Amino acid sequence: MSTIVANQQHASLERPVIALLTDFGSGDGTVGVMKGVIIGITPETQLIDITHEIAPQNVAAAAWILGSAYRYFSAGAVFVCVVDPGVGSERRAIALHAGSWFFVGPDNGLFSGIVQEQPVHGAVELTNPAYRLPQVSSSFHGRDIFAPTAAYLAANASEVFPKLGPALDPAGLLTLPTRNAIRRGNTIEASILHVDHFGNLITSIPLNIVPELFTAHNVQITFPEQGVAINQRRRFFGDGADDGQPFLYRDSSGYLGIAVRNGSATRTLGSGAGTPILFEISAS
Amino acid sequence: MSTIVANQQHASLERPVIALLTDFGSGDGTVGVMKGVIIGITPETQLIDITHEIAPQNVAAAAWILGSAYRYFSAGAVFVCVVDPGVGSERRAIALHAGSWFFVGPDNGLFSGIVQEQPVHGAVELTNPAYRLPQVSSSFHGRDIFAPTAAYLAANASEVFPKLGPALDPAGLLTLPTRNAIRRGNTIEASILHVDHFGNLITSIPLNIVPELFTAHNVQITFPEQGVAINQRRRFFGDGADDGQPFLYRDSSGYLGIAVRNGSATRTLGSGAGTPILFEISAS
Amino acid sequence: MSTIVANQQHASLERPVIALLTDFGSGDGTVGVMKGVIIGITPETQLIDITHEIAPQNVAAAAWILGSAYRYFSAGAVFVCVVDPGVGSERRAIALHAGSWFFVGPDNGLFSGIVQEQPVHGAVELTNPAYRLPQVSSSFHGRDIFAPTAAYLAANASEVFPKLGPALDPAGLLTLPTRNAIRRGNTIEASILHVDHFGNLITSIPLNIVPELFTAHNVQITFPEQGVAINQRRRFFGDGADDGQPFLYRDSSGYLGIAVRNGSATRTLGSGAGTPILFEISAS
Repeated sequence: MSTIVANQQHASLERPVIALLTDFGSGDGTVGVMKGVIIGITPETQLIDITHEIAPQNVAAAAWILGSAYRYFSAGAVFVCVVDPGVGSERRAIALHAGSWFFVGPDNGLFSGIVQEQPVHGAVELTNPAYRLPQVSSSFHGRDIFAPTAAYLAANASEVFPKLGPALDPAGLLTLPTRNAIRRGNTIEASILHVDHFGNLITSIPLNIVPELFTAHNVQITFPEQGVAINQRRRFFGDGADDGQPFLYRDSSGYLGIAVRNGSATRTLGSGAGTPILFEISAS
Repeated sequence: MSTIVANQQHASLERPVIALLTDFGSGDGTVGVMKGVIIGITPETQLIDITHEIAPQNVAAAAWILGSAYRYFSAGAVFVCVVDPGVGSERRAIALHAGSWFFVGPDNGLFSGIVQEQPVHGAVELTNPAYRLPQVSSSFHGRDIFAPTAAYLAANASEVFPKLGPALDPAGLLTLPTRNAIRRGNTIEASILHVDHFGNLITSIPLNIVPELFTAHNVQITFPEQGVAINQRRRFFGDGADDGQPFLYRDSSGYLGIAVRNGSATRTLGSGAGTPILFEISAS
Repeated sequence: MSTIVANQQHASLERPVIALLTDFGSGDGTVGVMKGVIIGITPETQLIDITHEIAPQNVAAAAWILGSAYRYFSAGAVFVCVVDPGVGSERRAIALHAGSWFFVGPDNGLFSGIVQEQPVHGAVELTNPAYRLPQVSSSFHGRDIFAPTAAYLAANASEVFPKLGPALDPAGLLTLPTRNAIRRGNTIEASILHVDHFGNLITSIPLNIVPELFTAHNVQITFPEQGVAINQRRRFFGDGADDGQPFLYRDSSGYLGIAVRNGSATRTLGSGAGTPILFEISAS
């Protein structure tokens, strides 16, 4: 994926950007507390929520959402990501400088996509108490470690980054198995990566490995478990008849998607994240 | 409705305001991506969420919420509104300058209330690629067209607006049928416009067409489908007995509302948006 | 609780902080309207949401969330809190200056924890129409009174606070009964205060009254209604076996918590806010 923001420019030093992604929900006030900590350190920060509705402790889902979002933020933005089933244990707290951005969170695979897609300029373990709150709890490192780290980085990344703690070998960071499907001839074994808010199914098939999606004579996705095959293709949601049938489309995340016009593909197909699928192309 | 914000003033150029209203929910990170795009273009923007919980593709509900909110924003604010079942089709992408504000989104009726209530100083179709992301997807114009347009407008509306694309005749914009009830003598045929977070029912009866609401000898709302009639009136929620009975009140949106104290009128009455009602006034 | 933010400093005058806490939900646009009003008065405000998902009209839950959050905001921050079942009635609208912060909302117990924990430098009743919107509805004081008050305070607290209305005796403010448990010897009668997003149960037992939590020979929490006893203790979530058993831990709110690793204590134990519990310590 090569999408680039129009006016890619360094966030002005006067308005550094911190984007937040957690599984904290919005009911407990915990995200607000993280923001209070950030603003207490770097008052000029522009705070942006990516989402706080990741299913509790679903690191893979968080990694996918982060991977679909980070490119749209200006250079210098700091991402603080907390989906952290191992909080308080020996899992490492880390910061990365990768591509044009900084990433702060637990070393549990959250940043695997970033490490695979972007050049890693540096990685550090967060051990320096000068960049934490004075008291560190055993269950809320988002507040006590990650938020203050992000705030200090946002204020002055080049000076702060090397002081956060010992440098790490990026090759040693924990990564999740890649979920992007690989094409073998005209067949792709894949799965559903994500169900979006509209019930669209996002597959693990990057659009760039199926360039002939709309020009091939025929394409077909089979859901073996559901015994269903889909071969309608549409260029946009309003294309074609409003017949309640699922169709393939190019999702804006850069992956092949499956939708039902004015409906929900996940309900129609009875399938969700993790469902295996088979994609086949007939050139003629 | 004549409510005006206390210190109506032009948003300072240093902190332009963009308010967002979508049906994207908060789970996919799509709103965060739109904000990332905006901040990449106009870093000083003050971003405000109106709501992202519009029922998927419910343009009428979005138009109502927007109509109850926009007056409370300072002059110069830009509203980017994306409830867009026709994304990717031939529906037009537009920007409006109406009253003291700017509005960006699809031409599908979202802005009907604005056009009916405010003088329209200009309308344009968004066709200029200079104000889009370099790649425009077929399913996420919020990110690729509307967010960048809003960001450029927020930075410099007077210069940018006329360059966005060809001028449109405001009379040709798509509008939804007006839902405001009209009074005929002492009778009003109306309906429920909106159910709020507390279960209050907001009717389509503007308060200014029932000036004698609290002075008339008797008033009555009938729900023909439910076979229920309501004639209690209360000046505020805590007024009168906590008897579980529905009552009429002046909703802060400027419309007549129906509530149950410490309860939910939608549950008590078994009715929701769209339910027809009949309002009758007995002067003596 | 003595947690203090690392770089406690007065919010810069250029970026005053307003934190919002309501039971308005995110669907109606009402929080967005409050923010529009604030920004119309004080454009430079840094707006932070604590939560808007308080259960409708649950003042005690709101007071607890506020109490767990406010210390993490920098000095000078203004909290506008609207959980207001008595809106429009004779309940007073107030502002407090307590500790290093300002609080705006109804006088219904929302701020009891603040008044108990912090020195109150002043309290006023909000009666001055100069700090309201020109029209005040009977059902949305968040928009018409509390948001503008907070915005004027954020811009210039020392000058505005005394002008908001007549001074009140802090001792006369409405307070909720304290819910913090008191220890008698080695026994504590307590209850569940809050169920968090992960299903963890937060008890009413402040950690500072059980300093020997991890050193005592044995500790036990009994749920009389459920006929269940818990005596496992863990220092962090990932500690010990993943056996589905509930355990005690130090919650980051400063209270004793009960959790299930990779699960939900509220589901496992069938208990929620308000459930009585008995805590016993065996020194040997």
